[in-house]
Amino acid sequence: MSEKKDLQSIWFSDAGKTVSIIDQRSLPHQLVIEEISSVEQMCIAIREMHLRGAPLIGVAAAYGMYLACREAERSNSADALTEASQNLLATRPTAVNLAWAVQRQVNELERIDEPAKRTAAALAVARQIEAEDIEGCRRIGEFGASLIEEIHSRRQSTVNVLTHCNAGWLACVRHGTATAPIYRAHREGIPLHVWVDETRPRNQGARLTAWELAQAGVPHTVIPDNTGGHLMQHGQVDLVIVGSDRTTRSGDVANKIGTYLKALAARDNAVPFYVALPSSTIDWSLRDGIAEIPIEERDADEVCFVRGALRDKQEVAEVRILPEGSPAANYAFDVTPARLVTGLITERGICPATEQGIASLFS
Amino acid sequence: MSEKKDLQSIWFSDAGKTVSIIDQRSLPHQLVIEEISSVEQMCIAIREMHLRGAPLIGVAAAYGMYLACREAERSNSADALTEASQNLLATRPTAVNLAWAVQRQVNELERIDEPAKRTAAALAVARQIEAEDIEGCRRIGEFGASLIEEIHSRRQSTVNVLTHCNAGWLACVRHGTATAPIYRAHREGIPLHVWVDETRPRNQGARLTAWELAQAGVPHTVIPDNTGGHLMQHGQVDLVIVGSDRTTRSGDVANKIGTYLKALAARDNAVPFYVALPSSTIDWSLRDGIAEIPIEERDADEVCFVRGALRDKQEVAEVRILPEGSPAANYAFDVTPARLVTGLITERGICPATEQGIASLFS
Repeated sequence: MSEKKDLQSIWFSDAGKTVSIIDQRSLPHQLVIEEISSVEQMCIAIREMHLRGAPLIGVAAAYGMYLACREAERSNSADALTEASQNLLATRPTAVNLAWAVQRQVNELERIDEPAKRTAAALAVARQIEAEDIEGCRRIGEFGASLIEEIHSRRQSTVNVLTHCNAGWLACVRHGTATAPIYRAHREGIPLHVWVDETRPRNQGARLTAWELAQAGVPHTVIPDNTGGHLMQHGQVDLVIVGSDRTTRSGDVANKIGTYLKALAARDNAVPFYVALPSSTIDWSLRDGIAEIPIEERDADEVCFVRGALRDKQEVAEVRILPEGSPAANYAFDVTPARLVTGLITERGICPATEQGIASLFS
Repeated sequence: MSEKKDLQSIWFSDAGKTVSIIDQRSLPHQLVIEEISSVEQMCIAIREMHLRGAPLIGVAAAYGMYLACREAERSNSADALTEASQNLLATRPTAVNLAWAVQRQVNELERIDEPAKRTAAALAVARQIEAEDIEGCRRIGEFGASLIEEIHSRRQSTVNVLTHCNAGWLACVRHGTATAPIYRAHREGIPLHVWVDETRPRNQGARLTAWELAQAGVPHTVIPDNTGGHLMQHGQVDLVIVGSDRTTRSGDVANKIGTYLKALAARDNAVPFYVALPSSTIDWSLRDGIAEIPIEERDADEVCFVRGALRDKQEVAEVRILPEGSPAANYAFDVTPARLVTGLITERGICPATEQGIASLFS
């Protein structure tokens, strides 16, 4: 159940006309597949993070619009699509791919009057976005692997890559963004090892990235988020690659909370810090990421309780780590200013994290 | 069971001639008191972190030497004291207080020939170190509170302090180091709020600092360790205060893993970053903290498993957050270079984190 076996994070079944996803909340302890047959179910799946990752929630939202069209066809309701798009947009505020995918559907659908044709068109757009994501991630892997190759040919030793959160195929459809160069270099036989930030509070690194890498046979070690600075001080990190949930036109990067701290440590220790992203995460309307990108605040329970498998049992349980009376705060993302980013790895190549650099690839 | 009720992290009972400690592994879910009656038990308590915190393990090691003297008195063994001191020194490598306290006992004891007199002297030294720690922390509170007062009088609003790990009274005997200024300012009626880093992997912030602050009625919010940079970018942190496990004569600070990342974020956002420490944590033999301070590596299980109270139950359990096959690394400390430290708060006053600054207080 990895790249080898071609499992995707989301897929459409022609036979059943259903959208299937991996319910990522159960990983790594169980592999649960969820069938989604209504836009309401898709909203819940996005909001409650059955699936997550900026590229993937873009694809999921596109399929959500298809499901909405199918429902509107049956109910013959004119406002249903508008409501569906608004509900999808409201599920999560930070990643721009969601809005980008929904808008792309709306642009297509508002030109079509006949309900059945709208449904067919929405499915075609969703499949197109899915295919573009796969191809974009494949190309990110190609461009990014050259960075790993270059370090290896210079150092002639195992390349240590640090990544934060999960920007793997579970966050996209296949390949991943930050992981695409890793998988590619690994397949090419370049010796590498990945430091996986566990990524509190939801442990996407410990749960998802570690699981992905284990499935693909990539050597890795999970570390608490506190550890990266120490490793960099001692020359144990050659390269940082992370994903992005929203990138301003000037190269500021919103990504999982804690990314900024790793970027600061990378700068302080002269470690290259790259962000891998499909251009669907670029928000062309924004220049100042810290001031302008909305940062999602999630339920404090995600900090208070940790989910995992009970020791010596298969059973999954949640344990409270805080005293009963103590409050917690749960900011889901932070913004890394462009000045700390060595470069952006996109589906069109690698560029500096500057307005000019981005414009040179996407004019 | 807080400052109000004068509970200490460790105490000697004249009646029973036993040393009692709070077994901190059970907090915040249960308050467990452990009676320690042999140096072997004390070694286990230090190594397996029934108690922790640089100042406290110094005091505990001093009492450990007392227990060793008592045992040597009974067994009449000449080598027992040497062995006891070596065993105590081997329990944990990073905090220098341990070596400092053991050496202080050895210096005292080697001048005394009669076993019973040695035992009495060792008890006196242990009680002296305990008393000095309490008084040192009290004075750190006095000096450090002035920083909080100054921010409050300038800003006329609630002062937001961020702290990492537990440098509270549970890490000392009373008052704490980083928390002493907080408790003092709180008692003086200065409005403040503490951002408590949960401090993975052992969650000393979420479990211990939050519990201490709740007991003392100090407003606080627990945050994942990833969060501090984002808060500083948005002006929500006025001051960082952390403790130290070992400080070089040049002002480099070894403290709980992740401290360095917060210092980088503080520097990037012009937030003052202070380290509170009794001079017993200064290692006068070292200048380059990153190169010279040994960093303890602990069992990977501390990263793989999280301990807490089962939801809706009182029962404490451990859950595994990693896939079965994925390895983890567990570095317990990192070193913050002096250039990132605004100042050191000591029992003799506040000084710059420089060799000259430290020498001005401790010539």
